[in-house]
Parts: sequence; C-alpha cells; structure tokens
Amino acid sequence: MRDVAIIGIGMNKWGELREKPIRDLIAESAHLALNDAGIDKVDAMYIGCMSSGLFTDQEHLGSIGPDYAGLCPTPGVRIESACSSGGAAFRMGYLHVAAGMSDIVMVVGVEKMTDVDGAKATFALATAADQEYEVYNGVTFPGLYAMMANHHMHKYGTTRDQLAQVAVKNHKNGLKNPLAQFQMEVTIDQVKNAVMVSDPLTILDCSPITDGSAAVILCPLERAGEFTKKRQVKIAGSGHASDTIQLAQREDLSYLKSTEVAARQAIKMSGRKLSDINFVEVHDCFTIAEIMVIEALGFVPRGKGGPATMDGLTAITGKTPVNASGGLKSKGHPVGATGVAQIVELTKQIRGEADSGRQVKNANIGLAQNMGGSGASSVVHILEGK
Amino acid sequence: MRDVAIIGIGMNKWGELREKPIRDLIAESAHLALNDAGIDKVDAMYIGCMSSGLFTDQEHLGSIGPDYAGLCPTPGVRIESACSSGGAAFRMGYLHVAAGMSDIVMVVGVEKMTDVDGAKATFALATAADQEYEVYNGVTFPGLYAMMANHHMHKYGTTRDQLAQVAVKNHKNGLKNPLAQFQMEVTIDQVKNAVMVSDPLTILDCSPITDGSAAVILCPLERAGEFTKKRQVKIAGSGHASDTIQLAQREDLSYLKSTEVAARQAIKMSGRKLSDINFVEVHDCFTIAEIMVIEALGFVPRGKGGPATMDGLTAITGKTPVNASGGLKSKGHPVGATGVAQIVELTKQIRGEADSGRQVKNANIGLAQNMGGSGASSVVHILEGK
Repeated sequence: MRDVAIIGIGMNKWGELREKPIRDLIAESAHLALNDAGIDKVDAMYIGCMSSGLFTDQEHLGSIGPDYAGLCPTPGVRIESACSSGGAAFRMGYLHVAAGMSDIVMVVGVEKMTDVDGAKATFALATAADQEYEVYNGVTFPGLYAMMANHHMHKYGTTRDQLAQVAVKNHKNGLKNPLAQFQMEVTIDQVKNAVMVSDPLTILDCSPITDGSAAVILCPLERAGEFTKKRQVKIAGSGHASDTIQLAQREDLSYLKSTEVAARQAIKMSGRKLSDINFVEVHDCFTIAEIMVIEALGFVPRGKGGPATMDGLTAITGKTPVNASGGLKSKGHPVGATGVAQIVELTKQIRGEADSGRQVKNANIGLAQNMGGSGASSVVHILEGK
Repeated sequence: MRDVAIIGIGMNKWGELREKPIRDLIAESAHLALNDAGIDKVDAMYIGCMSSGLFTDQEHLGSIGPDYAGLCPTPGVRIESACSSGGAAFRMGYLHVAAGMSDIVMVVGVEKMTDVDGAKATFALATAADQEYEVYNGVTFPGLYAMMANHHMHKYGTTRDQLAQVAVKNHKNGLKNPLAQFQMEVTIDQVKNAVMVSDPLTILDCSPITDGSAAVILCPLERAGEFTKKRQVKIAGSGHASDTIQLAQREDLSYLKSTEVAARQAIKMSGRKLSDINFVEVHDCFTIAEIMVIEALGFVPRGKGGPATMDGLTAITGKTPVNASGGLKSKGHPVGATGVAQIVELTKQIRGEADSGRQVKNANIGLAQNMGGSGASSVVHILEGK
C-alpha cells in the first residue's frame, strides 16, 4: 500500500443553515479544500452521508457532489455507515489512493438535518438502530445511550457530575472554534438541571441536530510536496469494525467493543503505541459516549472514564486532550460530516493551525474515533505529522 | 495494485419476497457466496444498496450485514450510487483487496422494494434524480427515459419495434434463468400494446420492482487457488464516471457520456480492446437504456443500437451477446443488487456454469455496465477467465 497524505482541508460554519441546500453544503467545503490544496480538480470523490434520502428526499449524492462542485465526469460515490459515514468515507478515499487507483481524491462528509421537524429527525436517526427489534418497540438514540449510561453508573459508580463534565469541557473547547454550532460555556449544574431527554441524559448531555459539511483531499505522500508547503500529514493507521446492531445482544452494555477492535487495527498499522498519541477526537454524541470511548481506546481502564474526565486528563492542557474542536457536543453533529470534520481538526492541530486557545501543544500524532449507532460500527484513524 | 480474483458467488431467487426482510436477503446471498468459496469468514464486507432508508426505514446496513451474516466484528459499510450502488460496491471491494488492506472481502448488493406501495416506490426511486430541478416539477424515471427515447427516435429514426425487441430478447434469455423474477416470453406486439407508462414506454419497456440480493467474494489472484478449484475469474478492469444529475444539462439527451468514460477507463486498465470482449451485461432499466448503452460502450455507432438489436447482434447467439441473464427487464431490478448480480452472471458465464440455454459460447472476457439515475453515474467492470 502506498503512503497517503492530506493536502487540503475545508469545513464550513456549522449550524441551522436554512439558506443552504445539501448540494451547496457539499460544494462549499469541497471548494474550501480545493483552495487549501491549491488545485482545481480531483480524480475521485467520496461522500459520507447517513441519510440524505430521509432528511432531504435526495439520494445519489455521488452524482450531486461532482456535479455541483463542478467536477464532472469525476466519479463520485456515497458512503453510509450511520453516524460513522464520514469516517468510513475517509477510509474509502484512503484505500483508493493507497491502492494506486488514482492520485488525487476528495472526501466530503455532509448532512442536512434541520429541514425536517424534530420527530422526523429523531426517526431518521433511529434508522441507524435496529428497526425491527429496537425502534419498533419505541426506543430511539437518547434512550439507548441512557441505558448505556445507567449501566455504566451502576457497574462502575460513574456519577451524574462526571457525565456533565464531558459537556462542560467540550463546550469550553468549542468556544474557541469559530466553526462550531454552539459557542457558549455551560456549567455542571446547567447540564444536570437542563430539560430531561432520557434519564439520566438531559438535553445538554446530547449532541445537537446540525447542518454542515467538511472535506479533505488526499494524495500519495511522496507527491504531497507538489501541492502544499504546509506541514505534511500522513495517514498512519486505519481501523474499522462492527458489533451487533442491537444493544441488547452485546456482551457488555456499556463497553464499545467495535471501537476497541478498530483502534487496535489502526495502532498496529501505524507502528505506534497508544502512549505515542498526543491528542484525540472522539464521537461524543452523548456525554456517556466520550467516557465509554476513552475506555475502549485504552487511555483509561474500564470504568475509569468518568473520574479521569473530572480529573482533567482529557482537557486541552491534560495528558490526552480529547475533542479540542469542541466535539460533537459543541461543534454540532451533522452525522455524515462528523467523521470528516474530525480529520479536518486533526490536520489543523498537526499543522499548528487550530484557532488560538484550542491548539494542543506538541500535536504530532492524533487519533480520530467515529462511531455509528450505539457502537455497532467504529472507524479509527491515526494521523501523523511529518 | 494487486490482481484480484472472484472466488465465490451467490444470488437468491428474485421476486416479491414478502417473507424475507432485508437482513435475511443480505444473509442469504452472503452465505451462498461463502459456501461457493468454501470459507466461513471474510475480512470486510461492502454492501451496495440504494435506499434502505426510504424502502425499509433501516439505514446502517454496514452493521446489519455482518451482524445477521454472523460475521461480527468484520467491518461493513454501505455503498450508495442510486441504481449503480451494486457496481460501486463491487469497485470498493476490489479496491480494498487491490490495495492490500486485507485479503478476503465480500460484496453484497441488496434492495427490498415491495414492502411499500407503488407511489412510495416511485418516489424512493426518484430520489436518484435531481429532487429540486426534476422531481419537484413532476418527472420520475419512466418520464426521464421516455424523453431520452423520444430524442433518440427523433434524432436517429429508432423505431418502436426496435425498443420492443430489447424486451423480447431479454425475456427470452430470462426464461432460462431460474433466479429471474419473470420467466416468460413476450412478443413485439405485446410490448407495444401493453399499458402505457410514459409515451413511448409501456410497462413491458420498464424493468420491475423487485426484492433480491447477490454476493461475490474477492481475494488476491495469487491466493485464489487456495479456495476454489473452479476456473479463476480475474478483475481485469474497473471504471467509474459521473455526469450531470439533471438530464436537461447534458450535451446530448440520448447519449450516456458517463458510460463511455467509465468503459474507456476499464478497457484501458484491462489492456484489452473492445473487440476482445465476448459478452456483456448492461443496465437495461428501460428498453431504450440498453440501446443507448451499447452505443456508449462502442459496440455500435451512435444511433445504430436499435437496428443492431433487431438484427440479432446482441442475442445470445449474436456477435456480442447482451444480457444473457435476462437483464434487469426479466431478471428483475432490486436496484442495489443489480450491479453485483451482473458480476455473478459474468462469473457464471466465464466458469461455464450458466444454466442450459443461456450459456454464451467462448465466454472468456465479459463486461458489466451498471448505471445510476438517468446516466449520472456509470460503473464498468471487465472480468477475464484465467
């Protein structure tokens, strides 16, 4: 396999973007990334999107993307893996270049979620869970993650305050991210006393509904110098794993095995140790998710994610900064875009381009963990500055 | 890039399969392919599906697939490119093995279409067209292809009988395919006099709504002998291209440029000439489509697809047999499954395993053309017996 580098990144301002249809969201980040790379065409386009059909009545983004970015007849294809669609699309773009099929590949992640009412958005998101055995019986994602949270609290003594601290930390980071949907700080008391969604998770434990996109451009590492004078960012490792789609069939309700398996693959491929990783972007779709993810990645022992968060391990100034971007919690969670935005953030950090106040010191090796459903899919990538 | 071979194929009986949910369709073809390859696990799974969200309220087939095929934690991801989802998924599986990411990869194509009423199915399919500029104004796929047919008839003198002959030929072939949805012959008069859908296309010019799946298993060519004693089938070429999603923006309403571009890529990669290709499976979603496709592939000059069909060029006994399987027209068109089923048919033909009456003589090199929307995406593959 050829070594692959990131030579361009782009991301628009996320939020409720009423004036921008999904095709404009794709084209906007695509052109930001093209400009960053200093090029005007690519050989192929991969588009991560969870459910443009249910959210916008538009499938076939593999055609919409190249067409509205002005890139026809460049081939395009959509990659879907629920909320890990972006990470999965990035992996496909990586494979394309690593294989040697062609050299310059763009990966876009996108979701347009706010053009439907809340009930339809909740329904569309629930299609990432088991429709026949979970959703049919009335459960949606806040309920699934609330069960995971209750199990984690019962088994390990994780506290309500520890959950809230994830939101406090990520909103503090997102305050420094001008592209984030919510730039505001929250306190532990505010999180605990916010409107209850599914006990113990309040609305401030949940990531929001968001419109947004993000894009990266890849090429063989040995050609990266032709395009960019910025620090070269290499894809050092890639991992991908599945678990049962039903939460009820897992060995352990509050352990993310697919994340563990995918992370092991990515770390093995990178030739690095977990302790070599300087900073991390993870899939904090709910506060409990970030706690479970840092356990599954191996940064803390099982059950210790809550205390470690409270102790500052994962703060920007901590030993392992997690979600310096603000995470899904503050930055927003346009589901198909999230995995690609994680790669954008890792690249910014490694290049030293993160906005003041959220730049991680010595950001040389970063890990991104993107997750679908209640952990039924996980994609992990490791990026390394050269 | 490593050479890649097909070591297993599987396809279920297509039709209106009320008793089989989409997860069973995936698992059924997956296990037929595993049995054919003589293995019980794979390293990765790619699932081509156009719109499980709109048809079955279930996204995240990248988790459903490995889970219900009993293959967790094998990673799975869904690939969508409208009606070329299957061909695009096959290309992703090919890239995965060619890159050297891992060795044994399964590609499944699937669609469950009959659990919704006809209007909803028409709507779901129309999400492959431009929702804002085409569908919103009332056009659906029969209308788009009828416009292409009228343009082709006006420009080249293609006749109503020539269109009908495509259906006559493909139903004759499908009569010999026990897995086809419709095993019946039709006459030119029956096609012309059937219920009008969109002038000039009657219901017998249209491919049907179908439930079905198909699967193939890939490995490096040098390892193929470990798994199968059957004739080895190599992926010699792969091509993929886009065009404008709106028909109205094309240079030529009745020419499939994306198919031409993708075919050129695949042929160049294969090191073969067009005249080396012994037989072809193409995307005959409507009768006019097959005529336009054989022109775009270069088997006949522009405008000559109709007369060539009438003259028997594309019959099983002709110079270039097209759709020996029965094509979408007779075999059925579960949209995400179609592109993978084309690969299954090519493999059967090259192995000499096609059922009696539809085996092409000297079937050594075959081409598959799979198409999304009104030709906004095309995927072309060339397979070669070793």
